[in-house]
Amino acid sequence: MRTDYCGKINASYIGQEVTLCGWVNKRRDLGGLIFIDLRDREGLVQVVFDPDLPEVQALANTLRAEFCIKLTGTVRARPEGQVNKQMATGEVEILGTGLEIFNKSAVLPLDWNQENSEEQRLRYRYLDLRRPVMSNKLQFRAKVTAAVRRYLEGEGFLDIETPILTKATPEGARDYLVPSRTHKGEFFALPQSPQLFKQLLMMSGMDRYYQIVKCFRDEDLRADRQPEFTQIDIETTFLGADGVMAITEGLIRDLFKQMLDVDLGDFPRMTYAEAMQRYGSDKPDLRNPLELTDVADLLAGVDFKVFSGPANDPKGRVAVIRVPGGASLSRKQIDEYTKFVGIYGAKGLAWVKVNEKANGLDGLQSPILKFLTAEIVDEILSRTGAEDGDILLFGADNATVVTEAMGALRLKLGEDFELLEGEWRPLWVVDFPMFEEADGQLHALHHPFTAPRNLTPEQLAETPATALSDAYDMVLNGVELGGGSVRIHDQTMQSTVFSILGIDKEEAELKFGFLLEALRYGAPPHAGLAFGLDRLVMLMTGATSIRDVMAFPKTTTAACPLTDAPSPANPQQLAELAIATVKKDAE
Amino acid sequence: MRTDYCGKINASYIGQEVTLCGWVNKRRDLGGLIFIDLRDREGLVQVVFDPDLPEVQALANTLRAEFCIKLTGTVRARPEGQVNKQMATGEVEILGTGLEIFNKSAVLPLDWNQENSEEQRLRYRYLDLRRPVMSNKLQFRAKVTAAVRRYLEGEGFLDIETPILTKATPEGARDYLVPSRTHKGEFFALPQSPQLFKQLLMMSGMDRYYQIVKCFRDEDLRADRQPEFTQIDIETTFLGADGVMAITEGLIRDLFKQMLDVDLGDFPRMTYAEAMQRYGSDKPDLRNPLELTDVADLLAGVDFKVFSGPANDPKGRVAVIRVPGGASLSRKQIDEYTKFVGIYGAKGLAWVKVNEKANGLDGLQSPILKFLTAEIVDEILSRTGAEDGDILLFGADNATVVTEAMGALRLKLGEDFELLEGEWRPLWVVDFPMFEEADGQLHALHHPFTAPRNLTPEQLAETPATALSDAYDMVLNGVELGGGSVRIHDQTMQSTVFSILGIDKEEAELKFGFLLEALRYGAPPHAGLAFGLDRLVMLMTGATSIRDVMAFPKTTTAACPLTDAPSPANPQQLAELAIATVKKDAE
Repeated sequence: MRTDYCGKINASYIGQEVTLCGWVNKRRDLGGLIFIDLRDREGLVQVVFDPDLPEVQALANTLRAEFCIKLTGTVRARPEGQVNKQMATGEVEILGTGLEIFNKSAVLPLDWNQENSEEQRLRYRYLDLRRPVMSNKLQFRAKVTAAVRRYLEGEGFLDIETPILTKATPEGARDYLVPSRTHKGEFFALPQSPQLFKQLLMMSGMDRYYQIVKCFRDEDLRADRQPEFTQIDIETTFLGADGVMAITEGLIRDLFKQMLDVDLGDFPRMTYAEAMQRYGSDKPDLRNPLELTDVADLLAGVDFKVFSGPANDPKGRVAVIRVPGGASLSRKQIDEYTKFVGIYGAKGLAWVKVNEKANGLDGLQSPILKFLTAEIVDEILSRTGAEDGDILLFGADNATVVTEAMGALRLKLGEDFELLEGEWRPLWVVDFPMFEEADGQLHALHHPFTAPRNLTPEQLAETPATALSDAYDMVLNGVELGGGSVRIHDQTMQSTVFSILGIDKEEAELKFGFLLEALRYGAPPHAGLAFGLDRLVMLMTGATSIRDVMAFPKTTTAACPLTDAPSPANPQQLAELAIATVKKDAE
Repeated sequence: MRTDYCGKINASYIGQEVTLCGWVNKRRDLGGLIFIDLRDREGLVQVVFDPDLPEVQALANTLRAEFCIKLTGTVRARPEGQVNKQMATGEVEILGTGLEIFNKSAVLPLDWNQENSEEQRLRYRYLDLRRPVMSNKLQFRAKVTAAVRRYLEGEGFLDIETPILTKATPEGARDYLVPSRTHKGEFFALPQSPQLFKQLLMMSGMDRYYQIVKCFRDEDLRADRQPEFTQIDIETTFLGADGVMAITEGLIRDLFKQMLDVDLGDFPRMTYAEAMQRYGSDKPDLRNPLELTDVADLLAGVDFKVFSGPANDPKGRVAVIRVPGGASLSRKQIDEYTKFVGIYGAKGLAWVKVNEKANGLDGLQSPILKFLTAEIVDEILSRTGAEDGDILLFGADNATVVTEAMGALRLKLGEDFELLEGEWRPLWVVDFPMFEEADGQLHALHHPFTAPRNLTPEQLAETPATALSDAYDMVLNGVELGGGSVRIHDQTMQSTVFSILGIDKEEAELKFGFLLEALRYGAPPHAGLAFGLDRLVMLMTGATSIRDVMAFPKTTTAACPLTDAPSPANPQQLAELAIATVKKDAE
């Protein structure tokens, strides 16, 4: 129906007749002439209708915003002074000589010149997506997936589909269930990830697998969570952690080079222990220069229980953050930070302002100065590198609370004081613990198929709490882009891990019997990684919400205002599935 | 861990040391030497262990089939007479000097040297997939999807994901339902296709969309059906039927050229009416030369109700198939064909054997000869082109029964008489009716969003039963590879179609209100097509079951013997979802 895209018309077209299809982005009448900006996926072009053609003029006069039309005309240079260097098509305009209206448009329920509510935007998603800022994000996403596929296929990875109707897997979140009609009373689960299937594909000898695949978690949603999300899922045989990290780091580096012309360089590696120590996070944002400095050793003897208590407790921690220029904080501002760390369980936030270092204790300002000696203060100033005008903020409690609270505070301070340096700061976090303790039971930090690092099953069983895993997370600007691990391919090791996790033989058999059985038939060493595609695209496009990089996202209550899903089922369907809905009072 | 793939080692490697990883495909001991074939995804290579290395020899002696190992050795030419030209690696063997066993294997529960039950094969899918014949199909499939993506991206199509948790759509099959936890008592449906979302994307201005996407139908399964299957889904704006057909025909032609080195040429087009008339099918297998010849006009006056009844009935049909060489059929064989057409509702199968045409009626053999005149018989012989040794088989009934029964019989005869000519015979079937009648109500032949061909809403409302749609099916060797249509982009037209389908305003509003509303805001002309990927790959690989081209298919009762899905849910999960299972007797 057309000869070209609107957004592609430039000076090289001058003198040519073109036919374009698209939407009226804007109409304005000037000096008896009708101008429109015509829009398609590729951009905008200015059209002025030929005033010597009364029929065309009359039809053009009916045009309103978002009418969908076909336009024929001749490309010509814009008059001097009307050239718009900001627009790709800004040097030209089209003298419109033919016009067909495919469809009129009622006045839009969204006003693009102001913020619209999330609910309205999702309800009229097809209109919201017409905005170039939204359309460009989906186009960018399509280019990202195409580039990912090209890279991985070049590395010998096979795109293999795994089932959506499957069995509950142990990722830990709540499953979406699907009642079976042919096996009444039973349910499929939608996969939280294709973890077990990709491992089975390695046992099938498929060697290198990838999939860009939907995963599902029925969790209470936050700003960056969706009930269905997309994973770049990768698994390899006969490669260890270094091999997988090299391939996947290369993928992300290529992607940034190709899409954003950014060279990410080699990614540094940091142990989980160091990340928690210095940044209070297992996904540190390295653009933020603030660090946690440990000072418990200095404070074990002070007459201030808030410090000496945790300093003398093997499970305690005392850490300080130096904020350059922070001495200007008001009492009220400090109180707000105190409230902030309270969210993470911290009971207070001690502080010391450094006004004039050269004056010793007199040059400092703090309610807790009386508990500290000049020697202790000197050492703290020296360890943190404090300068005049800084503030020191102290966390003292059990180690978990201090690490979490000060880690979060670090991020907040970095933003409030606009300290972020550099645009992109990737890293690998490695040497995670195999397990974390909660309620007197060990839980898998990653998932129960993660291999320990350099341990036999016997060694692992002896000291599980201190065992490290062969897992690795890729972190960029404080966001976990992806995580993976070497998997267990030894049946005894897998049984040992299940037993450490408190999964008894019967339960292991019921849930993972097929995996344990598969390990009996020459299962190969294998390892992999999964990226969160939505989060990756969100980061690369600078989007503020994950919803902006998905075509049809759900609301925070997991509903779709556009199609009105979910909705009641008809009774006949439920009868066929042999299920019934239960009223709350009936429970 | 390795330097090369087993299947890639050839004469160019001679003299080099290589390290390979893979599975012991076969072990045999000959003259004190231990030979194995080592297998990976890319193929097999022969290894003989160095008899001068006793440690390696001892370890090699423990090897059994399907052990997973790492092997180091030197590539050398096979001795004269041992070269195997059938194998890519058949000119060489590896003198094994290093061996590590990653994992032993118990004796496989599948015997690859004989047929295994489908249940066993699915239960041990990871072992079944190790067979090269299976592994090659999945590799082929991955190459097909990569080629499809490259082609479509080259044509400007954007890969955009649509939701899996969505609202029931009207494809007509049963939906899979997913109970919502946050909206208790309500359900998502898994999509039978992304039809409405892809139309909304066109209204969003995305211009050209594609997706390789899972779709779901809760139907009773046949050999070539699966509860979840994969569609190559395509939609375009500002293109009509010819434009979509050109792009998608180009895609399939490219694919066959690239993957199979087959030139499919230009696809002929045939109307639905002609296909039903000549082949008794809307997806004719053109490799089969048999045709249905209509003879009702000749038989209206005969004294044989079986013929004259349908011949005089405007809804009747009398058609004949000439089978070359069919005069040799025994009475028993004819009885079996009669039984076969009975499946399709035919009450009998009249026949005439042509023994000696030159002898007139005396040269023929048939129980119904007495009802026919020489003139009638002459004309039938001439129309069908019958020769000596042929048989003519007659169908006479209402048109639907004759078309279906004779269409099916045509396929069966084509196979039984081995008549198929040519390897690949693609075509387009076009000019479908908009509606078909059943139980006194019109139903959409494709789906209710299909546009009629050259009709206004008023014209369509006047004569819906004879209206043709702007739909097109791509057929290859009797298989419907894909189907599509121009969609309705006019609100009045869409409402007219809903009303013809007996969907009242309230129901239309409830089910498709969002679509009708979207048509108010400058909806563009759009059209698309969807291919069944599984069926396409099945056809291209010569697989006999759709299950052979999927990594983890379900059984015919929609279960997975490997993971044991579906399975009972725990009561707490059901309580959270506010649903209960219903015992049969309780219904």
